[in-house]
Amino acid sequence: MCLLGIDLGGTSIKAGLVDINGKILKKGQVPTGAGEGTTAVLKRIKNLARDLAGEQGLALGELEGVGIGIPGSVDVARGLVHLAPNLFWRDFSLRDELAALLDLPVAIENDAHVAALGEMWQGAGRGYTSILMVTIGTGIGSGLIIDGRVHHGLFGYGAEMGHIKMVCDGRQCHCGGHGCLETLASATAMVKSFREYLAAGYPSMLSDRPELGAKEILAAAAGGDELAGRVIDEAACYLGTALANAVLLVGPEAIIIGGGPAQAGEVILDPIRKHLAAAMGTWQLKPVPVLQAALGNDAGIIGAAYLAMKTSSQY
Amino acid sequence: MCLLGIDLGGTSIKAGLVDINGKILKKGQVPTGAGEGTTAVLKRIKNLARDLAGEQGLALGELEGVGIGIPGSVDVARGLVHLAPNLFWRDFSLRDELAALLDLPVAIENDAHVAALGEMWQGAGRGYTSILMVTIGTGIGSGLIIDGRVHHGLFGYGAEMGHIKMVCDGRQCHCGGHGCLETLASATAMVKSFREYLAAGYPSMLSDRPELGAKEILAAAAGGDELAGRVIDEAACYLGTALANAVLLVGPEAIIIGGGPAQAGEVILDPIRKHLAAAMGTWQLKPVPVLQAALGNDAGIIGAAYLAMKTSSQY
Repeated sequence: MCLLGIDLGGTSIKAGLVDINGKILKKGQVPTGAGEGTTAVLKRIKNLARDLAGEQGLALGELEGVGIGIPGSVDVARGLVHLAPNLFWRDFSLRDELAALLDLPVAIENDAHVAALGEMWQGAGRGYTSILMVTIGTGIGSGLIIDGRVHHGLFGYGAEMGHIKMVCDGRQCHCGGHGCLETLASATAMVKSFREYLAAGYPSMLSDRPELGAKEILAAAAGGDELAGRVIDEAACYLGTALANAVLLVGPEAIIIGGGPAQAGEVILDPIRKHLAAAMGTWQLKPVPVLQAALGNDAGIIGAAYLAMKTSSQY
Repeated sequence: MCLLGIDLGGTSIKAGLVDINGKILKKGQVPTGAGEGTTAVLKRIKNLARDLAGEQGLALGELEGVGIGIPGSVDVARGLVHLAPNLFWRDFSLRDELAALLDLPVAIENDAHVAALGEMWQGAGRGYTSILMVTIGTGIGSGLIIDGRVHHGLFGYGAEMGHIKMVCDGRQCHCGGHGCLETLASATAMVKSFREYLAAGYPSMLSDRPELGAKEILAAAAGGDELAGRVIDEAACYLGTALANAVLLVGPEAIIIGGGPAQAGEVILDPIRKHLAAAMGTWQLKPVPVLQAALGNDAGIIGAAYLAMKTSSQY
């Protein structure tokens, strides 16, 4: 039994053949070419799928099913992509069109949710059935899995941790709100805070660096730079407090942190755990596992294959 | 088919016979007498159950099942009451002991969760399967129902809205934390804030009243008192913001507000809706229904009967 997991991004289509144990057998990627229109994108997906199946000595029709993660809002029940700005898609019936083209069952889902499924199946979340995955990057993405299934909620977008309001009248967010978590604790926010402190005259070993990213700040914090440590601790305080609220509201069995800054490891995970515990206080009956995402870029492929497996097993 | 729903409180045991349409056929109550010990409490439950069945022309054994809500922490899977301070119970195997005494299937659950089930079945939440119920009183209680079932979360206590941290270094909470929602928006908190403003010299039509409760403040706000309106609006701002976070994280289909202050109606519900919408911003794709609880004290009986029905239908 062989599943096809697809991670559809604005710049590239990544896909992999995955067995029922979650092992990637073959993988490949091609440019998305979203500007050429829907039909061209679907054709490239088909070619990539056929090539991967061929490398494995299989015809396309021998695959069990296809899962695909989309960078946008998805109506899973109806198989529609509502809005995917990076792909220029709006209200596109991706599931049925792709299923017709491949003659295979297709399941679609938002990509942050797919990554969470992947981490639950084969990554840091193995052994858990209810997890919250938070991805720190330009913004803050999140996916909530309850009892092994993606939780979509009233508006279909599932958990939107990044837009929880943490500070009244805080920094303006691109969503139009103020004080959203991602304005305070994303990689972008860490850099912004760091630059604000530098401009205010705080000393740092990084003060002469013209180019500066969250990676450099995390490395400096690990190396003992006081200002870098302060910026990371402040971001971790907002993250830990928001996570405590999530634990008080939903109580996932484990929290998985993904994205670039999470790769720095304990220098960011430890302060998150500390502030989570502080905000939980007596309500934390035992430490809530806060784990580093383990699959990196493969989470999308593996999660999409999991989606395909669960969907095709319903038939 | 007749179910027995029991609302076990520190001072009284309320119980009702409920049909499968959620209609209370008979109800009654007796003092709990928790100080006399476990056996005495269980015996009183049995007598009340037998009396109610008798009034309906039924023997106890003709009932389909029993549900019971407990003011404390419950391990539903194992049928244990972990801790119920008002009853002086700790790690008591209530489910099995009561089932043996009544010779009927028994299901147990925390009382805030039971009330949420009741409102979903027969109250303000009819027609919804995922609701968040928030009860404003001395503290702030909450129950989260997802897909028709109580959501228990990692620590078993389900949603604990009241202890979400809203303000850093805010008022001390009895839980040991600071700035918990219930220190800012419970009935107790409204009274406290009102008194603080009075002490600071703010004028109010209530300034001469020696005894003052949330009910009087809500009535004054409805009557146009500026200070009362300000206090209600501040509490509603914290509630609405916390509810927005819950919608962003979990997205229940409807929010139900219970407890004394909710009975004042629009004077509190309207500001909650306003602040919820403001905190959601563009993430609120349509208004989230914020509804007044409809069952009052019967929510516990009806919810417990629902629990009994769902549990016995599994056999």
